[in-house]
Amino acid sequence: MKSIQIFAVAGIPEIVPGDDVAEAILEAIEQTPIELTDGDVLVVTHKIVSKAEGRVIDGTSDEVYRAAVEEEARSILRRRGDLTIAETRHGFICANAGVDRSNVPTGGAVLLPLDPDRSAHRIRVRLRRATGTDVPVIISDTFGRPWRTGQTDIAIGVSGMKAIADFRGKPDAHGRLMEATEVAIVDEIAAAADLVMGKVESVPVAIVRGVAWESGEARATDLVRPAREDLFR
Amino acid sequence: MKSIQIFAVAGIPEIVPGDDVAEAILEAIEQTPIELTDGDVLVVTHKIVSKAEGRVIDGTSDEVYRAAVEEEARSILRRRGDLTIAETRHGFICANAGVDRSNVPTGGAVLLPLDPDRSAHRIRVRLRRATGTDVPVIISDTFGRPWRTGQTDIAIGVSGMKAIADFRGKPDAHGRLMEATEVAIVDEIAAAADLVMGKVESVPVAIVRGVAWESGEARATDLVRPAREDLFR
Repeated sequence: MKSIQIFAVAGIPEIVPGDDVAEAILEAIEQTPIELTDGDVLVVTHKIVSKAEGRVIDGTSDEVYRAAVEEEARSILRRRGDLTIAETRHGFICANAGVDRSNVPTGGAVLLPLDPDRSAHRIRVRLRRATGTDVPVIISDTFGRPWRTGQTDIAIGVSGMKAIADFRGKPDAHGRLMEATEVAIVDEIAAAADLVMGKVESVPVAIVRGVAWESGEARATDLVRPAREDLFR
Repeated sequence: MKSIQIFAVAGIPEIVPGDDVAEAILEAIEQTPIELTDGDVLVVTHKIVSKAEGRVIDGTSDEVYRAAVEEEARSILRRRGDLTIAETRHGFICANAGVDRSNVPTGGAVLLPLDPDRSAHRIRVRLRRATGTDVPVIISDTFGRPWRTGQTDIAIGVSGMKAIADFRGKPDAHGRLMEATEVAIVDEIAAAADLVMGKVESVPVAIVRGVAWESGEARATDLVRPAREDLFR
């Protein structure tokens, strides 16, 4: 019976700028009953990556926060009250340009990594060197959506696997060619991982086992729909 | 170690109008080594539900297809070429008002169920009567997103659990109250289930085990952002 397992990797201490996040992940995995295995995908919430990379701001005032949002935004799509929907330097479109004040012990805010694909790549290389196993790494964040309430986790960085599972031109179960099925598989994996991470507990890493992914050097920024093709800017 | 498992329920025969989809699901689960257990969530792709409910159209011509899209759409948000982004009768915003030509043996198209929450409820009640276990049911579909390429599975119907896991006002790992964290947990479960379903094989049902969901009588239409609050219509 085909199945997938998602394991929560807890026990990672509070990460501060300069910490080695790959090392912290390795140590946490060593405390679990499982180890990284060929075929696994590692999902890491961006917060611990951003903290390790020093992508944090101090200060709890609304002014400091708003200044950070303006600094992080490449363009502003909409504003309403305290909410700003902005395009980040990476091309992601999200609330407050990804500046997030939750889960920061000092009361500051966390920014997105400067290059989350590169962050994913660095973690993957470190894990491969330490374990001998080459496991794709996804960096996740929690995004809202237009039209639908609630947030879901999506991939903002990826290394070692294709971001899209492309079924276009493949026959469906009835032999008919499928018209438009490109599954954002890294987003689905990030969403699945969030189910064990929760928001209240500190579970910033998950191991996803049993997914049929394709290796390749895609980037999460490949998932950004080009502005000229986007009907909703 | 906290973990989640997702099991693929294969072996469901081609469903035709009038079939008892709950019975077909039960028979397929009986062929697997596992059985429904308290805490599980059952995810069912809408296609088999729509087919059982007769929500299919015959005819392969583009005219028939376009007429169906117009019929299903409550309003049209955008058009470009063959692509129509429309609001369905339920309030969902998606490509071609949910009319889908893939995975239909006769070459017609499948429409969305008239009331997917009700469809989920009916399946849940039937499974509860047959097994004695009350398992929430999610009806899923594959939707595109603005801004991001690729599609992910989301929930268009739900019975037996809350659609949103609401962390607003709860303290985060550092005791700070979280500002805006409402997780669209049914969408994350639908996305996770899609990872075992694939698009090519016929795996229309998945059992998701180990998710911390809250019982309640939410509806998937609760996830529709009210038009007056939506910045992107």
